[in-house]
Amino acid sequence: MSEKYISKAVIGRLPRYYRYLGELLENDEERISSEELSKLMKVTASQIRQDFNNFGGFGQQGYGYNVKYLYGEIGKILGVEQKHNVILVGAGNLGSALAKYPSFPKRGFTISGIFDVNPDVIGKTLNGIMVRPMDEMEEFIVNNVIDIAAITVPRDEAQTLAEKIVNAGVKAIWNFSPVDLNVGDDVVVENVHMTDSLLKLSFNLAAMKSGKWDYRI
Amino acid sequence: MSEKYISKAVIGRLPRYYRYLGELLENDEERISSEELSKLMKVTASQIRQDFNNFGGFGQQGYGYNVKYLYGEIGKILGVEQKHNVILVGAGNLGSALAKYPSFPKRGFTISGIFDVNPDVIGKTLNGIMVRPMDEMEEFIVNNVIDIAAITVPRDEAQTLAEKIVNAGVKAIWNFSPVDLNVGDDVVVENVHMTDSLLKLSFNLAAMKSGKWDYRI
Repeated sequence: MSEKYISKAVIGRLPRYYRYLGELLENDEERISSEELSKLMKVTASQIRQDFNNFGGFGQQGYGYNVKYLYGEIGKILGVEQKHNVILVGAGNLGSALAKYPSFPKRGFTISGIFDVNPDVIGKTLNGIMVRPMDEMEEFIVNNVIDIAAITVPRDEAQTLAEKIVNAGVKAIWNFSPVDLNVGDDVVVENVHMTDSLLKLSFNLAAMKSGKWDYRI
Repeated sequence: MSEKYISKAVIGRLPRYYRYLGELLENDEERISSEELSKLMKVTASQIRQDFNNFGGFGQQGYGYNVKYLYGEIGKILGVEQKHNVILVGAGNLGSALAKYPSFPKRGFTISGIFDVNPDVIGKTLNGIMVRPMDEMEEFIVNNVIDIAAITVPRDEAQTLAEKIVNAGVKAIWNFSPVDLNVGDDVVVENVHMTDSLLKLSFNLAAMKSGKWDYRI
């Protein structure tokens, strides 16, 4: 039980730090104080320091953090120094968009396989990768080292496919299907529920217009 | 100051309640107790009751909630009883996927216009809607009643376009660009940061494998 507890809120903010630090690095910024980062990111400097203290603090000196070092350390924590092999389960509109998303390979996430049940799609290529029949998926996972499966199939197919994916050995699922998957405790799931997100926006718009609820932090 | 404060966490859970209740309704379930809903959704019954109490409690009786009534009430709170006109700003891979996403029209979100700068895309149709030149966007917003703009353009173009969208009168932005938009307090923004989401998954996978951090709730 030597595990250090990191809250979901902190984990949720880590990719955002990584994104801002990446932009600072692109702009050849060498150092940044927690106060400057605070202004840029619109979170308090004390929140930044608290968040970073979860991971040892990254050695802020009087003159601030070393941007390149901080970017590298947060990248390590996020696991991006490792290459990840990803399969896309579902080659519909969203799956096709993910196959062509330029940021993923830049961060070391390589799409190794794409699977679908639609005969019109099977055999075609998406960003250079051939779409294979869904019933070849498990064998493909077993024969290749697959770290992450992105699921973009319709709701009713997602749970069955998730079980096959997990049984074949994948430990991380990026779920775009509008359903909460039931998988074991040794599998991590990250959901992107599009409609939930749109409904949150719709709530906030209605709340702002009506003045009935204060929906801001 | 008669506004009732609703926390972000509660708002974040509302669409999920709505999703589950919609499924119960499809399955002709008439009533559900907070305990049954708790088991189904894997949140505590007390959390459900607390969440619902923000909105008056929806009248749970001894025999539970009326599913249809609860679905309708949460739908009203989420603003889905109103029709929303949506424009897509950016008709790339992700914009195209959104244009074809079947759940949005079902929930009353109608794509009324699609805009892009790419001459190869302008004039083509996506799900029956013609892609228009980006420089017609502001006039289109002014001449039509547009509630929501979904932005799927590259990072460097997002802020400028967001300002144009807001100046033309749109009050809600669904932002898929990997950047945090600066807009006024009278505009609501909901972000879907794909790479941030993938990096969270990558963190959780690395944390699970290393046992260095306890990342669960």
